[in-house]
Amino acid sequence: MDHIKELSEILNLDVQRVKSLFRSHVLTTSFFEKSGFFSGISALYRFDKASSGYEKGTLIAITEDEGSIFRGYPKIRRAMLLGPAIEKRFPGRVVVEEKLNGYNIRICMINDRIFAVTRGGFICPFTTEVVREGNLDEFFFENPDLMLCAEVVGPENPYVQKDVYEVDSVDFFVFDIMDRRSGKLLPFSERKELCENHGIKQVPLLGIFEKRKWKRILEIVRELGERGREGVVIKDPEMRVPPVKYTSSQSNCGDLKYAFTYFNDYGSSFVFSRVVREAFQSVELGEDKDELRERCLRVGESIILPMVESITRKMKGDRITEKFRIRVKSPETAELFERYMRRMGLKVHFSVLEKVDGRYIVEVEKLMSSTDDKIDSILNGELW
Amino acid sequence: MDHIKELSEILNLDVQRVKSLFRSHVLTTSFFEKSGFFSGISALYRFDKASSGYEKGTLIAITEDEGSIFRGYPKIRRAMLLGPAIEKRFPGRVVVEEKLNGYNIRICMINDRIFAVTRGGFICPFTTEVVREGNLDEFFFENPDLMLCAEVVGPENPYVQKDVYEVDSVDFFVFDIMDRRSGKLLPFSERKELCENHGIKQVPLLGIFEKRKWKRILEIVRELGERGREGVVIKDPEMRVPPVKYTSSQSNCGDLKYAFTYFNDYGSSFVFSRVVREAFQSVELGEDKDELRERCLRVGESIILPMVESITRKMKGDRITEKFRIRVKSPETAELFERYMRRMGLKVHFSVLEKVDGRYIVEVEKLMSSTDDKIDSILNGELW
Repeated sequence: MDHIKELSEILNLDVQRVKSLFRSHVLTTSFFEKSGFFSGISALYRFDKASSGYEKGTLIAITEDEGSIFRGYPKIRRAMLLGPAIEKRFPGRVVVEEKLNGYNIRICMINDRIFAVTRGGFICPFTTEVVREGNLDEFFFENPDLMLCAEVVGPENPYVQKDVYEVDSVDFFVFDIMDRRSGKLLPFSERKELCENHGIKQVPLLGIFEKRKWKRILEIVRELGERGREGVVIKDPEMRVPPVKYTSSQSNCGDLKYAFTYFNDYGSSFVFSRVVREAFQSVELGEDKDELRERCLRVGESIILPMVESITRKMKGDRITEKFRIRVKSPETAELFERYMRRMGLKVHFSVLEKVDGRYIVEVEKLMSSTDDKIDSILNGELW
Repeated sequence: MDHIKELSEILNLDVQRVKSLFRSHVLTTSFFEKSGFFSGISALYRFDKASSGYEKGTLIAITEDEGSIFRGYPKIRRAMLLGPAIEKRFPGRVVVEEKLNGYNIRICMINDRIFAVTRGGFICPFTTEVVREGNLDEFFFENPDLMLCAEVVGPENPYVQKDVYEVDSVDFFVFDIMDRRSGKLLPFSERKELCENHGIKQVPLLGIFEKRKWKRILEIVRELGERGREGVVIKDPEMRVPPVKYTSSQSNCGDLKYAFTYFNDYGSSFVFSRVVREAFQSVELGEDKDELRERCLRVGESIILPMVESITRKMKGDRITEKFRIRVKSPETAELFERYMRRMGLKVHFSVLEKVDGRYIVEVEKLMSSTDDKIDSILNGELW
């Protein structure tokens, strides 16, 4: 609350409006410590929801000299039926890129140092270490007002661990470049060129299609699904209209499987939209009786089996936790990241396992308290 | 709002409290028309939620001479694991009765006439006609302060149509008798005797069991499921503790099938609790791989197939409606009931088909607008 005046200027909102955004907890401080990691930064603020023309996740960094804004990445909406959605929403040809299954970040430069910002508008210490390995300095010194929007994927990260990409530990792939002040996304060709010129990896391009060829895209999604991949993002080459996403049945079922493993920690709405997708996809693919039966079994198994497993695990005396590994260059990153996760309200336990090739392998165990408590109470005779 | 003073006396709450209940829409008027059907009644009020010690669905009828209260029926909570729930919650032996799959009403006498009250505290014109055929006058003249709590079942009713009972059109079965003023439920043996003495049909008694014999109850539920029946309600014979319900997988899947036919009209939470039950049941039954796979397929089919059917139906140009038949003695009942349903916000269309054995067969078509609109918009390229 020390920077009302600066925020008022940066956001172009009057002081009363900024105060009211604080009071309603729409504008709030973001994770920050006075330490070397954040050196040069005096304070961080974020939009917890969209308001006053700013997206959820918009970050404002106050440094000693100035304040900078980093606009939130807009939610990409989902097609339930690919054909009608493409026909209706795009003016002409569409760019189809692979939607990677990881987590979405914005990479930016604050006070000459690179940071990774999560969807919610938090600077993530772990991801920041990852992106700082990416040789992005030149890009940002040349383009200080741009942000790289990227998906972080791989088996060793704290958010979404997938082993289907050719990534050993963790890596990131750019899918958009955004003007940090206006939130405007660059046209596809400009983004492509900028990334290529700076040797920055991008998400795989699957093709550029005429709208009427949407069945080919449906086919691509089916093939991606068979390879354990998530799906596609469809864009207007000029970015005149918002992109649209569409995912494979395997990815939807993977989400269900994860959500039902920790069923009480994930909302019922998370589950609902995912099963509805499956029905629309089946109709659009024109599935026959056998294919439909296979889909029903896949959906049913994605729902029931992980719950059965969690209940059984709890009956054996285990706690319901999620375990994953991360690999960090310095123990300080791990310590800072642990404090960060706890500040997010997560019950995590970090243990450094060993040092391999100059990196520390850290095992993280996250207690899924709501599911753990719920199963426990039912085993003890409580009702629903 | 004309009866603040009367309500204050009946509810034993001060006038300010009653006014505040009205302002917060907790206490509200119930469906009422100045007509022969409601003759003798001046006004009806109901609790839309539980408050001030009164259950949701509590009804207050103001007649010319006096006001009477009819307490709401308490929600019966559900066991997720039968064994631990029975062990923990019941003091000794348990009465197990069949839970019929219909709708729950309270039958009461107001101003010497019998009425059927829904869970929500509405007098239902259709159900009132049904229960008036039940020769209940003697019971109510002898016991004006009691209410019969009954399940209405059969293929021809406006709420839950099931053809698994030996009921041609519609019938009702008492499962509890309640003191209308205190809400207290009579002990099992008293209820049984009172019903038998007055020739009133009751829900089937499946047995009285020692707590440690709960596996036998699980077995009964499995058998009931195979016959398309819903499940059981488990009671303390003396009604010292609240009853507990437990349902078969077939019933849970039936619910899912219905909910997903009209997926956007039914909340995601409705769906969620039903799939969670399935996992706990599988664990408690100790299912092997094949049984588990069969359950997964059953759950998956209950979710996906009805949605696929509704989408396909809409693509063919049909609207998403639910159709059912009711049978009434007088056309006035049908007309009154149509106005009642519309006042409930339902989009219904009634058509009298024919007169058979002195009864009018009426076909009712109910538009499921939310699902209808949602599928329509997706077929037109809208996103989720």
